[in-house]
Amino acid sequence: MKYPEGVKKNYVHTNISHRNRGMTLEADLNVTNDYYLKQKKANIHKKPTPIKLVKVEYNIIKEAYFKEPSTTDYNGIYKGKYLDFEAKETINKTYFPLNNIHAHQIEHLRSIMEMGGIGFLIIRFTTLNETYLLKGESLLLFLSTKKTNMPYNYIKENGYLISDKYIPRVDYLQVIDQIMEEKNEKKN
Amino acid sequence: MKYPEGVKKNYVHTNISHRNRGMTLEADLNVTNDYYLKQKKANIHKKPTPIKLVKVEYNIIKEAYFKEPSTTDYNGIYKGKYLDFEAKETINKTYFPLNNIHAHQIEHLRSIMEMGGIGFLIIRFTTLNETYLLKGESLLLFLSTKKTNMPYNYIKENGYLISDKYIPRVDYLQVIDQIMEEKNEKKN
Repeated sequence: MKYPEGVKKNYVHTNISHRNRGMTLEADLNVTNDYYLKQKKANIHKKPTPIKLVKVEYNIIKEAYFKEPSTTDYNGIYKGKYLDFEAKETINKTYFPLNNIHAHQIEHLRSIMEMGGIGFLIIRFTTLNETYLLKGESLLLFLSTKKTNMPYNYIKENGYLISDKYIPRVDYLQVIDQIMEEKNEKKN
Repeated sequence: MKYPEGVKKNYVHTNISHRNRGMTLEADLNVTNDYYLKQKKANIHKKPTPIKLVKVEYNIIKEAYFKEPSTTDYNGIYKGKYLDFEAKETINKTYFPLNNIHAHQIEHLRSIMEMGGIGFLIIRFTTLNETYLLKGESLLLFLSTKKTNMPYNYIKENGYLISDKYIPRVDYLQVIDQIMEEKNEKKN
């Protein structure tokens, strides 16, 4: 479970200790999306975490629960196209565990692609310090094998390595440009 | 402030009493969007309300606050196009108070339109039982007058009345089809 910065955590899940090593993927994507917006290049946002409110007193939430999201976390518009993706990081070096992505989110990505949108994953191997963009098509192809862990090599071979920069930090739109070009070449 | 159903409200704002009269616009849009999704017509969702978490104990939120949204509430894809809108209802009969829409949300709609997306408002006059779709262009045009209340007549003349149906309840994509046709006619 992710907690934004500044949250008092009485219960800290042990597998989030790697966060202290540097910026999280979420934080990197936030500054990247802010940069894209200021440059008038794209308008892409992270959706707020869905919450089930139970008790609210004088506009202060006193009891609420995290809900499972029914869509991916990020969507927006780039070059007139609808973009939609989920971003995940893993400390594993040899595979990405697919239970990180909920069934709803996979169905959502499938639906987006059927409707002509660009659906994808951004996967960071934190230990290797490598971030990949994996097209929705490659995700669905792998899921058809019914395997629960996606090997690092599958992502390395079928995904696109996102170069690590200072500004913008995770320049995934550079990869989207490449994908759009490849699609145009196929058409012609 | 809107509370989802089932929330214990210790503080009830007086202007939400009209909600008891029938379905709210938000609920109507939720069932409409569910219908569109099931029909594979469009994939449009309401974003969760942004929350600032302060205290979380064993995955239960014990203290949190509502944050002002930086985007509109609804976005998604229809016929390959990026759609983005805000939905509001008012009990006024003669005007729609523009302080219902935050400055951030207006800038967001402006940005979406500049990038080739379709941005609009859905406004319901609950007392009149009339729901209108107002194009982002008509909103920005009115805002340039610096007036704070948008007259009902402006919306009636420049907006599109959304017909009240059983299924889907608020068929706003019918209006979007009309707007897309008008745009194509202008091009030709």
